[in-house]
Amino acid sequence: MSLKELSTVMLPEIETELQRVVAMLDTPHTKSFHEMVTYHMGWTGEGAGSEAAGKRIRPLLVLLTNAACGASWQLALPAAAAVELIHNFSLVHDDIQDQSELRRGRPATWKKWGPAHAINVGDALFILAHLALLELKERVPLEMAMKAGQIVNDACLALTSGQFMDMSYETRIDLSIEKDYWPMISGKTAALLAACIHVGAVLGNADESAQEAYRSFGHFLGAAFQIQDDYLGIWGDSTLTGKSVESDLVTGKKSLPVLYGLGRNGLFARRWIEGSVRPDEVAHLAEQLATEGAKLFTQETADQMSDLALHSLRAADPQGEAGEALFELTGKLLNRQN
Amino acid sequence: MSLKELSTVMLPEIETELQRVVAMLDTPHTKSFHEMVTYHMGWTGEGAGSEAAGKRIRPLLVLLTNAACGASWQLALPAAAAVELIHNFSLVHDDIQDQSELRRGRPATWKKWGPAHAINVGDALFILAHLALLELKERVPLEMAMKAGQIVNDACLALTSGQFMDMSYETRIDLSIEKDYWPMISGKTAALLAACIHVGAVLGNADESAQEAYRSFGHFLGAAFQIQDDYLGIWGDSTLTGKSVESDLVTGKKSLPVLYGLGRNGLFARRWIEGSVRPDEVAHLAEQLATEGAKLFTQETADQMSDLALHSLRAADPQGEAGEALFELTGKLLNRQN
Repeated sequence: MSLKELSTVMLPEIETELQRVVAMLDTPHTKSFHEMVTYHMGWTGEGAGSEAAGKRIRPLLVLLTNAACGASWQLALPAAAAVELIHNFSLVHDDIQDQSELRRGRPATWKKWGPAHAINVGDALFILAHLALLELKERVPLEMAMKAGQIVNDACLALTSGQFMDMSYETRIDLSIEKDYWPMISGKTAALLAACIHVGAVLGNADESAQEAYRSFGHFLGAAFQIQDDYLGIWGDSTLTGKSVESDLVTGKKSLPVLYGLGRNGLFARRWIEGSVRPDEVAHLAEQLATEGAKLFTQETADQMSDLALHSLRAADPQGEAGEALFELTGKLLNRQN
Repeated sequence: MSLKELSTVMLPEIETELQRVVAMLDTPHTKSFHEMVTYHMGWTGEGAGSEAAGKRIRPLLVLLTNAACGASWQLALPAAAAVELIHNFSLVHDDIQDQSELRRGRPATWKKWGPAHAINVGDALFILAHLALLELKERVPLEMAMKAGQIVNDACLALTSGQFMDMSYETRIDLSIEKDYWPMISGKTAALLAACIHVGAVLGNADESAQEAYRSFGHFLGAAFQIQDDYLGIWGDSTLTGKSVESDLVTGKKSLPVLYGLGRNGLFARRWIEGSVRPDEVAHLAEQLATEGAKLFTQETADQMSDLALHSLRAADPQGEAGEALFELTGKLLNRQN
């Protein structure tokens, strides 16, 4: 089966598993609470559907990795649900923290029910993730279930540490790519992706060296993905044209190209430290940043991370159709245009 | 050893264990993040000390129960740390949700660093709790460690459900004691206390019936404690006199006496639905509520819960000096005056 065929089988099972776990909140006293969670997950409310649910890439990576290790991937479903719930917990809290009003094209949970309820929705998603992880104990040896729990929680600590760094960088301009950017994206983006793939391999009973290779694959995939996101946030078609208000130059995000530009200390840096960038300056400033070398640097760094990801994936030696699908999905993730 | 002597031995070990777990955040990139957490835990910053740290009742209950089952309580230290971290996670998020500016006499975390960082501090405390729980796997059989994890996470789900109910009651006046109050305090207060004591018993290798008795003890202890809190929130010395602004009548909390009064549909209820109560009305309104029977009802309900707690504790049959200390601590918790 190709990636497409495997996805067609796996994605509905992921959704069923997620709904089963989230249904723990569906009690007579917490109907509206359950509804807030199902809204955020994209299942209910105005605009519900696959667009609102997101791509479920993380659980898919768990299952594909698991199957590529020769396991019967259904046993990893609780872990797949757990990582998706953790991803969504972080999104709900992120949106409050960043005051982002939209999530996947719909009003964010905090915008719809207020920050107090949204904090609680994020907390519930996180707890549900742990309850899902605990279900592994009925399916795999206890040691394996414990190791999965350890990997996921270590990633969560990295996630919140990365979130702290991201927030603390907002007011700083003395940031270095080496010392500040890499630790931040390692926590915010790469840690959970590495955990997804690592957990898939652990539950697939991969040997230690294969586990390590899979984990590296996840880490570099996450890094490449984030850097590409940073690239598109400034030079993506939509951020340069129609949606220049969404450009990272306007939101002030301390992305890789911006840090590179600040390090050059040229015209871009001088404009940046003067204060917020207006949408009508975006096209010109993006060009200036490219002239100073940031575009090439960002592209090359993304390419390096992609190469490392593919190198690690080859070392992990994923098997069968799921293995091929893993290469295919990696290719898609690393070559996206939006 | 008496409760006092056991506390003198246990409390410093709890503190050391907590500090060891929280030190996971003490990395070069997250120094200030670590500092936010140590501030909330009462160890650093202005006003640091035992007052700012709180009483650590929950971890003490874990250890005393564990010892009363005949176990060597040191092995339960990670679980003791975990429940205290979970309690504190809920406090940090509660304070943002309720916009409470003070926590244990000091500015709340959100007041000091803003809500965005405080959300993240709460998340980190919760993750650290899970990382502490995972350490049980080095000390006790895996089945036991898993069961502890299950009990704690089930309690967390009840906690966030109770929090949802509490928030959703703010704007409602059609609340029933039976249908609305009990489920809310079962989640918000009793679930975590029941979990503390249940986990202590599980890690003490108590048999199933003793575990059940301990768990009931924790549940009723939590209920009695909450109802007493509700009583003191209206008729406590400080809420009637010096700090009438802190009276539950002013904050509008849907406590047991208030629900009782609303159900009577008398003068109290008529005043309540007219809108916020002013501090200068507190003394008169508290008296009116007492006249309508709410004071007696609340006291009697607290007494019932206390009796049930003591009955369950006797059924659990705690052993040795720790067992006696458990009765002593229960007596103290159930007879507090402030």
